[in-house]
Amino acid sequence: MFEKIALVGIGLIGSSIAHGVRRHGLARSIAIATRRQETLDEAEALGLGDSYTTSAAEAVRGADLVILCTPVGAYGAVMAEIGPALEPGAILSDVGSVKAHVVKVVAPHLPEGVHFIPGHPIAGTEHSGPSAGFADLFINRWCVLTPGADADPKAVDRLVTFWQALGSRVECMSPDHHDLVLAITSHVPHLIAYNIVGTVADLEQDTRSEVIKFSASGFRDFTRIAASDPVMWRDVFLTNRDAVLEMLGRFLEDLSRLQRAVRVGDGPAMEELFTRTRAIRRSIITAGQETSAPDFGRLQGSPAKPEATDKGSA
Amino acid sequence: MFEKIALVGIGLIGSSIAHGVRRHGLARSIAIATRRQETLDEAEALGLGDSYTTSAAEAVRGADLVILCTPVGAYGAVMAEIGPALEPGAILSDVGSVKAHVVKVVAPHLPEGVHFIPGHPIAGTEHSGPSAGFADLFINRWCVLTPGADADPKAVDRLVTFWQALGSRVECMSPDHHDLVLAITSHVPHLIAYNIVGTVADLEQDTRSEVIKFSASGFRDFTRIAASDPVMWRDVFLTNRDAVLEMLGRFLEDLSRLQRAVRVGDGPAMEELFTRTRAIRRSIITAGQETSAPDFGRLQGSPAKPEATDKGSA
Repeated sequence: MFEKIALVGIGLIGSSIAHGVRRHGLARSIAIATRRQETLDEAEALGLGDSYTTSAAEAVRGADLVILCTPVGAYGAVMAEIGPALEPGAILSDVGSVKAHVVKVVAPHLPEGVHFIPGHPIAGTEHSGPSAGFADLFINRWCVLTPGADADPKAVDRLVTFWQALGSRVECMSPDHHDLVLAITSHVPHLIAYNIVGTVADLEQDTRSEVIKFSASGFRDFTRIAASDPVMWRDVFLTNRDAVLEMLGRFLEDLSRLQRAVRVGDGPAMEELFTRTRAIRRSIITAGQETSAPDFGRLQGSPAKPEATDKGSA
Repeated sequence: MFEKIALVGIGLIGSSIAHGVRRHGLARSIAIATRRQETLDEAEALGLGDSYTTSAAEAVRGADLVILCTPVGAYGAVMAEIGPALEPGAILSDVGSVKAHVVKVVAPHLPEGVHFIPGHPIAGTEHSGPSAGFADLFINRWCVLTPGADADPKAVDRLVTFWQALGSRVECMSPDHHDLVLAITSHVPHLIAYNIVGTVADLEQDTRSEVIKFSASGFRDFTRIAASDPVMWRDVFLTNRDAVLEMLGRFLEDLSRLQRAVRVGDGPAMEELFTRTRAIRRSIITAGQETSAPDFGRLQGSPAKPEATDKGSA
């Protein structure tokens, strides 16, 4: 499909793309660029690409598909470096979790003739780094593209076909709409999960130990999301502020009402809400976006095995 | 271990106890009582017990272990009915998620010579009803007992051994301490999950469809908890109000600070918090209370199969 794909940044998403491109034969060669030598060595040891460099400009030279896979906060610096090295006719895309900000930051560095089509594969795990990736990550998951009004339809088609080849379902929408939908499906849930795990981290030592011990009662679900990459998520909240604050405002209004229901002991109001929310999960299972197995299919009865090293947390 | 175990209420926990008692041969007979004939028929069709009745008093007659497995809100009525039928020397326990309230409600109905030892197996799934239970549910999970200061040590030992035989680790503490720890590990996380899923349920139809579609970005984790049994959870919030409001207050203070960090764009504060929270998940994995597999071990690459019927939502 492509002669040379350049991946700038090689964390969970970048390495998963590399695995998928290799498995499905989507490019003659894969060039990998990342700033830190240590991460690059890790990517090379894993055999993720065909060439490895700490120079993003070198990686993108001659590439007909370039995908930015760094945290969004690094895009400005990366674009300043690679802008002059991008080939006319090449497709430039990314995998960032916010889109309006990305368009604003990338545009000034975009040379004539390069097709910029922002993207966001809605897939991931709580692990990060080059070793966290796997080819199956995108299967049955959505990838949102936000091409501009003046985007070349042929280039868009090529990128759609690329993501479909990786197993994704693809949908196009405007950057602003993407950012609003993701604020409620992703950004605010992450903010809340980080917050409650932070509240626990601040508890007195004794209570904290007990919370960890008895975490299987619900709290541990939140810790998965709150174990996501800190720099990536910092950048999300720095660059999608308005939509996040809007959706967080709605959440807080509703929480005030629910807090009051607890205080005054309004059983019927609680039961009504708790019944309504059950239906939402059923919709997600019906939409094929979640397993119907109890407890996410966590292996019941098989004690979770403590591990000495957590491979994912690079 | 016991001659006759009476299970009053036969939802997820009651039916899981029945499976475990049968598998490990912990009683000569199991009597099952539940108020609704339909639920009783379901339990009988599943072969969960040796006798079935809609009369709790009849079930507990001659039982040397009685376990209340109804929602906590029903305990008062159940105790008024079974109190006169309880055998001297019998152990009376329960599986409710709150403990101080349970002690208060049960005590007035307790006949002389019956050993009341409240309990709470910290285990469950988002499914409910007699068909949701399985014998492995308690394996490697904690069961908290809150015996009073005057409890008979031999009776406590028997109940500890019973739960250990079901696979649990057992810990004793005071009812008030239990309620405070569970408020933060379980009750507040459920409240927050119910709340955010409710916020989504209130969105305009178009946006709501998209949230369901793109839920795999984080939101769907919350929907699992928010799919838990509505009546059981209503009763938790009606009966552990003070501890829930205390912990919710801490959560809200922290969320105000985080909201401000988003508004003013305080990147370092966010990164610091997001890094700290990652460590909490590692502690839970090390404590053997969680899988280290990415994404809870949800089957990556195996598309979740939409199901026509959701067995669990009875």
